[in-house]
Amino acid sequence: MSNKPSLPQGTRDFGPEVVRKRQYIFNTIRSVFELYGFQPLETPAMENLETLMGKYGEEGDKLIFRILNNGLDNTAKHQQAREDFEKVLEGKNVKGITERALKYDLTIPFARYVAMNHGQLTFPFKRYQIQPVWRADRPQKGRYREFYQCDADIVGSNALLNEVELTNIYNDVFTQLGLTGFELRINSRKILAALAEFCGGAEKMVDITIAIDKLDKIGLDKVKDELSQRGLNEEQISTIEKYLLIDGNNEEKLNQIEQLLGHLETGKKGIEELEFVNRQSGVSNLVIDFTLARGLNYYTGIIFEAKAPATVKIGSIGGGGRYDDLTGLFGVPNIPGVGISFGVDRIYDVMDELKLFPEGVYTGTQVLFFNMGAEESSKAFSTMQLLRKQGVRCELYHESVKMDKQFKYAEKKNIGFIVIIGSAEIQNNTGVVKNLKTGTQQTVSLADLSNKLFI
Amino acid sequence: MSNKPSLPQGTRDFGPEVVRKRQYIFNTIRSVFELYGFQPLETPAMENLETLMGKYGEEGDKLIFRILNNGLDNTAKHQQAREDFEKVLEGKNVKGITERALKYDLTIPFARYVAMNHGQLTFPFKRYQIQPVWRADRPQKGRYREFYQCDADIVGSNALLNEVELTNIYNDVFTQLGLTGFELRINSRKILAALAEFCGGAEKMVDITIAIDKLDKIGLDKVKDELSQRGLNEEQISTIEKYLLIDGNNEEKLNQIEQLLGHLETGKKGIEELEFVNRQSGVSNLVIDFTLARGLNYYTGIIFEAKAPATVKIGSIGGGGRYDDLTGLFGVPNIPGVGISFGVDRIYDVMDELKLFPEGVYTGTQVLFFNMGAEESSKAFSTMQLLRKQGVRCELYHESVKMDKQFKYAEKKNIGFIVIIGSAEIQNNTGVVKNLKTGTQQTVSLADLSNKLFI
Repeated sequence: MSNKPSLPQGTRDFGPEVVRKRQYIFNTIRSVFELYGFQPLETPAMENLETLMGKYGEEGDKLIFRILNNGLDNTAKHQQAREDFEKVLEGKNVKGITERALKYDLTIPFARYVAMNHGQLTFPFKRYQIQPVWRADRPQKGRYREFYQCDADIVGSNALLNEVELTNIYNDVFTQLGLTGFELRINSRKILAALAEFCGGAEKMVDITIAIDKLDKIGLDKVKDELSQRGLNEEQISTIEKYLLIDGNNEEKLNQIEQLLGHLETGKKGIEELEFVNRQSGVSNLVIDFTLARGLNYYTGIIFEAKAPATVKIGSIGGGGRYDDLTGLFGVPNIPGVGISFGVDRIYDVMDELKLFPEGVYTGTQVLFFNMGAEESSKAFSTMQLLRKQGVRCELYHESVKMDKQFKYAEKKNIGFIVIIGSAEIQNNTGVVKNLKTGTQQTVSLADLSNKLFI
Repeated sequence: MSNKPSLPQGTRDFGPEVVRKRQYIFNTIRSVFELYGFQPLETPAMENLETLMGKYGEEGDKLIFRILNNGLDNTAKHQQAREDFEKVLEGKNVKGITERALKYDLTIPFARYVAMNHGQLTFPFKRYQIQPVWRADRPQKGRYREFYQCDADIVGSNALLNEVELTNIYNDVFTQLGLTGFELRINSRKILAALAEFCGGAEKMVDITIAIDKLDKIGLDKVKDELSQRGLNEEQISTIEKYLLIDGNNEEKLNQIEQLLGHLETGKKGIEELEFVNRQSGVSNLVIDFTLARGLNYYTGIIFEAKAPATVKIGSIGGGGRYDDLTGLFGVPNIPGVGISFGVDRIYDVMDELKLFPEGVYTGTQVLFFNMGAEESSKAFSTMQLLRKQGVRCELYHESVKMDKQFKYAEKKNIGFIVIIGSAEIQNNTGVVKNLKTGTQQTVSLADLSNKLFI
């Protein structure tokens, strides 16, 4: 049996160069998280089905990959299994024959971890998590069924200091990655709540948020149409239009929102939050953006969105916000928190497009020792072992063949230097070192071979 | 709805300290792989079911986690789905309602990758892969349903140089991790084949290998019983006994095996392989061990096993060997290779038991700035940002509460230093730096705060 192998739709192999570039991004993010006192956490790929079900809305539930129980061929279980399978066909989310599922995001497993361990954890608990998640979405450009999420959250603290730190984390990561022209947009859910209160009451919050969230895509006029369809009157729509047209620098925007919503308790609180973060963060490309809504999620305070430089048409490369209750769903109430997420696949695309990956990231093997025969390669091997002790990444070509072929191998693997130890060189205890980029070549005493030669 | 959350059986959360210790092991292994010219590869968690099925024997097939197709609630598909489900109940391995499955090891996905990309790859292709795999094994102490594998393989080369390098990789990794007293055992499948040829013919190879493989567990007498039950005669069993009793240093062992099997073509080849690796590798704890068999797998040449120091009762911490045909199952013949694997969970246990993790591995945050009020914490924050730029991992306590509570937080998080900036210190532009391990305390000008203070 020999069939042509393939990859499941929406999944990817990452070859050497791509892994190295992705690791460069992950390591940068990880080191910044660590500088800010966040600690690593890893949870399993699979969770019990009931941990995940009902947490992502009806649409989300359908996109969860469920794992078939093993041992269903045990005949004692057949009748029950058939009944359970009928429920699957009806679209019901009972565990039955699928007790486990692949995680859909990092937040719910994190909540499950905190709920299970809250007695042992030190609060505020600051954790970061960089792991793959799985979604049965229809694959398309830039959307995969397996992709990494990269989250940092502080739970057990209401302090706005955390929001300030998170804006700095975004700034430090993007700056270290060499990104310029990115923007950190912030708003507060309290401002949106106040706007709803002012325009038809709290029950209009969802309608207004959904409409505002579409502003980027459909433009102001269509947002107004949609608000009208959703039952808002002209005066209310006119207020929302004023709100959406607020402009200027951050201070100017804060003044305008103060006039529009400062008379409401919730509005006042939201404005204070934004003022504090704006004053304390010290991040120059922080932009207060009242049109930022971040969809229909559980955020209750400051919300974040990181935008790629306008020169690349990629949009959001990160987002997050404050929530009141992480673990209530798991029976542990009153753990508030705030978190952010990096969109690693998109950051990768931005960096690739802007050619921001440093050249060293690609480099695997630095030096190739040519294989010139049995005795020669034995000498090359022992010389190479000394270089490896100094941290030089080297290889000895695996067989004694024409130099042509060995050169080609160095070239294809993008190796910068070759060392040739032939019989004459063994006599003199030397090696010929050739820099393949410059073409320069020198004969060096083997005792003088050191990592300094290969830079 | 609030239910007490739990983890699926056989899976684990890794908290901060454990992640850091595991990362220390992974990073050590990764850096050694890179020194030897291996390149990173990552494949998806899920593979098409037909990529995995039939590759791990009947028992292995049953331990593969299959993923239920999404969209089965689409009524047009119900009848077909029911028929497919009946096949699942019969224990048949057809894709039907489970087109995808979680990977069971790293070797088959690697083979699938090489088969799919062999036109673009540069051979010999040296790749390493550090990723989780999943098996529906019954969980028990030290056996998990999700665990990491950590493999390095060279494919497209028959050179024994590769085997020599792999012994050095084991040696370098264990030495860098601080392990002493480990052993690298090697044998050649060709020696075992010659022994079978000499004792009843090639068709006895499986019987002999299975019996020898049990030597450690059941002892020589019971191995002899088993060989007798498997139809070997007294003379054959006596030869195998002689074989198993070969002893001494590596040279002595090679002399004895030469006398026993050197007259056979296959035996001679096996001896040459072992002689070459023994002579070239330069690894002092390399042990030729003719009782090493490594089960019923596809190895054809040198086989490896790394054993933990005898002081811990953990046994094998790695293994591997040479194979003739990686990708034949996927329609691409004639790609031989050799590879090794590190048993990361067991290495972790060995290092934990022998207390080999360096203290720095545990350290998260190095410095805690106390929160002494609004103005003070604003000063602390800007000071902290300067330290972070120097690479110091710091935190500012999130709220202004009693110093007691802030001390306790530092203690619980094992933070080594605190810095207090109160109103008096703001006046003088100083901070009080306290080393929580030694108890010493000094007042330092904020301009002089630097990473050198926190070592």
